[in-house]
Amino acid sequence: YLVLGSLSPLLQQKIISLFKKRPLLIAMDTQNYWISHMPDELKKTLSMVDLLTINDEEARHLAGEFSLQKAARKIMRMGPAFLIINKGKHGHLLFYKKKVFFAPALPLEEIFDPTGAGDTFAGGFAGYLAKTGDISFDNMKRAIIFGSAMASFCVEKFGTERIQRLSQDEIMQRVQEFVDLVQFDYILD
Amino acid sequence: YLVLGSLSPLLQQKIISLFKKRPLLIAMDTQNYWISHMPDELKKTLSMVDLLTINDEEARHLAGEFSLQKAARKIMRMGPAFLIINKGKHGHLLFYKKKVFFAPALPLEEIFDPTGAGDTFAGGFAGYLAKTGDISFDNMKRAIIFGSAMASFCVEKFGTERIQRLSQDEIMQRVQEFVDLVQFDYILD
Repeated sequence: YLVLGSLSPLLQQKIISLFKKRPLLIAMDTQNYWISHMPDELKKTLSMVDLLTINDEEARHLAGEFSLQKAARKIMRMGPAFLIINKGKHGHLLFYKKKVFFAPALPLEEIFDPTGAGDTFAGGFAGYLAKTGDISFDNMKRAIIFGSAMASFCVEKFGTERIQRLSQDEIMQRVQEFVDLVQFDYILD
Repeated sequence: YLVLGSLSPLLQQKIISLFKKRPLLIAMDTQNYWISHMPDELKKTLSMVDLLTINDEEARHLAGEFSLQKAARKIMRMGPAFLIINKGKHGHLLFYKKKVFFAPALPLEEIFDPTGAGDTFAGGFAGYLAKTGDISFDNMKRAIIFGSAMASFCVEKFGTERIQRLSQDEIMQRVQEFVDLVQFDYILD
């Protein structure tokens, strides 16, 4: 599992080329700077990866589309089979083929410091996939819930303070809060 | 079932007083104008209703709290047992006692005209409760999905154009899209 931070697209390509055996999943992040200044190199990197994580504003910028649905389809045509759009405190969208999954962020009492939330999400997401060894769309949904749970701890304290003293029980309890937040029973006749 | 639009709190009180038998559920909407100009009368009306629908900005204004969690708890202490906070294109939160439920809005391709989306939501929500005759928290979750589905049609065309020629099949299909958007299987060990 390879997760590339929002480095220069050239450096991202170089890192990918260092692997003798292709990783099971290559995920990458990017940002407005590379979208504006290295669009061609960025598109080359996009054609080499399986998954892109990007925020809503960057997705609109990269695709030149305001509608996130339309932007998502354009971006997936550039290469990544999976696309995660981060809407900050409004949660995450996961796109794959014609499917969409939405996971909200928890409505937290206080956000002490949002620094690092995106990277903590990526770490929790990739960690869950690596631990379960399953990169199906259904398992990615679960990975997004775990990533969101990890990110929700990150913002409760300054820097890595909260993440450093985190127990497995606390994580599972937080994941259950996400389940409770969105679950409803509805059987369509 | 009584649904009060965001009229003057005095008029809302008068309407409630006209009922010889109390409706099974009294829901109300309000807006910043009444929060600013008639806070005491508004609080009196709030003490007489079961449910308040309000948008996020108004909830913060009414409670004097930025955190929606904290704002929700303050508002519920003013009277309504149920509180729905409308986050516009970011969906709805339903609060009841210590429970929270979140329903996203569908990521639509185009929003043609958002006028009337809030009222269409309220109509779909109350209509579902009235049809099923069940005002439990669990059924309110389903009612929010139906209200959201109705509102998603409203914004596709100008005015009431889309809602006027809507079939039951289309509604059920749209509800299924909401189910697919958020459902994931996860059993915690």
